[in-house]
Amino acid sequence: METTNRQVVLKNRPTGMIAEDTTAVVESPVPEITDGQALVRVKYLSIDPTIRTWMDDAPGYLPPIGIDEVIRAGGAGEVVASKSSRYAVGDLVTGITGWQDYCIADEGMAAMSPAPADLDLATTLNVLGVTGMTAYFGLLDVGGLREGDVVVVSGAAGATGSAVGQIARLKGASKVIGIAGGAAKCAQLVEELGFDVAIDYKADNVGKRLHEEAPKGIDLYFDNVGGPILDACLANLAMRGRVVLCGAISGYNDAEHAFGPKNYTSLIIRRGRMEGFIILDYMGRWPEAQAVVAEWLREGVMHHSEHIVEGLEHAPEALNLLFTGGNTGKVLVKVS
Amino acid sequence: METTNRQVVLKNRPTGMIAEDTTAVVESPVPEITDGQALVRVKYLSIDPTIRTWMDDAPGYLPPIGIDEVIRAGGAGEVVASKSSRYAVGDLVTGITGWQDYCIADEGMAAMSPAPADLDLATTLNVLGVTGMTAYFGLLDVGGLREGDVVVVSGAAGATGSAVGQIARLKGASKVIGIAGGAAKCAQLVEELGFDVAIDYKADNVGKRLHEEAPKGIDLYFDNVGGPILDACLANLAMRGRVVLCGAISGYNDAEHAFGPKNYTSLIIRRGRMEGFIILDYMGRWPEAQAVVAEWLREGVMHHSEHIVEGLEHAPEALNLLFTGGNTGKVLVKVS
Repeated sequence: METTNRQVVLKNRPTGMIAEDTTAVVESPVPEITDGQALVRVKYLSIDPTIRTWMDDAPGYLPPIGIDEVIRAGGAGEVVASKSSRYAVGDLVTGITGWQDYCIADEGMAAMSPAPADLDLATTLNVLGVTGMTAYFGLLDVGGLREGDVVVVSGAAGATGSAVGQIARLKGASKVIGIAGGAAKCAQLVEELGFDVAIDYKADNVGKRLHEEAPKGIDLYFDNVGGPILDACLANLAMRGRVVLCGAISGYNDAEHAFGPKNYTSLIIRRGRMEGFIILDYMGRWPEAQAVVAEWLREGVMHHSEHIVEGLEHAPEALNLLFTGGNTGKVLVKVS
Repeated sequence: METTNRQVVLKNRPTGMIAEDTTAVVESPVPEITDGQALVRVKYLSIDPTIRTWMDDAPGYLPPIGIDEVIRAGGAGEVVASKSSRYAVGDLVTGITGWQDYCIADEGMAAMSPAPADLDLATTLNVLGVTGMTAYFGLLDVGGLREGDVVVVSGAAGATGSAVGQIARLKGASKVIGIAGGAAKCAQLVEELGFDVAIDYKADNVGKRLHEEAPKGIDLYFDNVGGPILDACLANLAMRGRVVLCGAISGYNDAEHAFGPKNYTSLIIRRGRMEGFIILDYMGRWPEAQAVVAEWLREGVMHHSEHIVEGLEHAPEALNLLFTGGNTGKVLVKVS
């Protein structure tokens, strides 16, 4: 077994995109485990926009990552040593691994979950992980999707967005409209993922297209981006329309020029609701959702794709991809 | 009986405050009633911010007022002639009267409601009318007030705001914080209306004061004003905090520079909800709320005040008062 653990740690808080001096790779010995713990060789890291928010020294739903601390992130790996009855050598597990080669699986908050044996780890981290769970609970629980709803999702070619559109379809939405950047992504939404309509925000007038495609208004808008697209959706909200706030990626790199949606007053006229959520709150209910999504995967009705970046040392560039729109599908880093 | 009906009609759509040429007083014969109708002598008009929104040629929850049409408004009056078994001469009634001396009480949508015999008409239009009902259902139903909540209300010295603060207190809020403009209004909130704290937005740093007074965050914010005060409250929201959007008076006169609350992303981190409503949707449930509020009035635990402007022809200036903050309490126009 290797004796060195490479770790990507935070050196300087970024302003805007992650830069050369934001992180550094450091080496330390592979950690020793004590009773009740297991050692996990990390195989994949889940690259999620929220990691960028943890790099700021600002209040959030979790504390900021400290300087010289390992970058916090979800991931998956294989148990390579165990002093716990909970974990056996060879088990595949998911949880908070951090950007490093090895992590410790413990109990309580630091426990890791078994990964399904018949699905590969990359899939597990995508539609059965934070991404799929965010889509599932955001759409059904926070958004209260009803059969016949006209659903709009932004960041639709991204990992969460593409799951949202497909779940909306599977759960009876009357029309699913995706907003994405570029002709290739838009074609994929309609041709591969079963969206009814794709709007290219780089080429189309989003507000005008929404008005044409949802003349009676949007019943449920799942917002991954914030900014002017959120405003265009608010302006086109149906009576009692719901806006699910999942993220505001357009603002994560530019806190100074944060964008306020001036059309929020539509919520008054249309009796609408805008609600935020954090998927960690739903941890206790993941198994019920994972069972449903796993069944869709086995039936072949749920498409997913992973954009895999090779090498732990490239995790920072992988995170930047989310903000440049350089990915299609879930971004993962293959560590080993 | 008089034979002339004075009416205030819309002549030009205002930009900003109502101006000299926005409205005109015209005279026409007192209308004839037909079977099923009654003639009502208007006594009071209810002056509400929403009237200003109806003057714009913009989509809303009701159609815009047309040019040369009577200004739409709620009011109260006395039945002076009747061809209906529903209305007897001498009855006091409330409903949509419009800015005029006489209106017709009809059936269906144009029906008017009996006013309680033991409370005066001005009180009825205030806490038992649109104002009180907005406070009641907005706070309890949309906001889901819970015992122990820390409640903040803006426009707190206004008619709706002062009712919100008092109802929050009566229903078990742990702390009621009012935001108003000027020392006199703030003193009144604490000394007369039972608010725990008043913040003077003209003199204080609202965000800083909110942070001091609600260190654990705001559970329920009842927003009457929009603008930077909404943003300050969003920044200080408690976990699972609720924002009730009642109005955005700071923006009604300046649609071009509409203010978007950049701190809406607090709704994600704090799992918050922001929801709008229109009190007309609750019409069917007004009697249950009116019974509760009438009981509070009889017990003397619900304070209210009316700012009465004399003369139908002064209704436009009365409406402007709402936007200059020149009133304390409910603005009414005494017509006769």
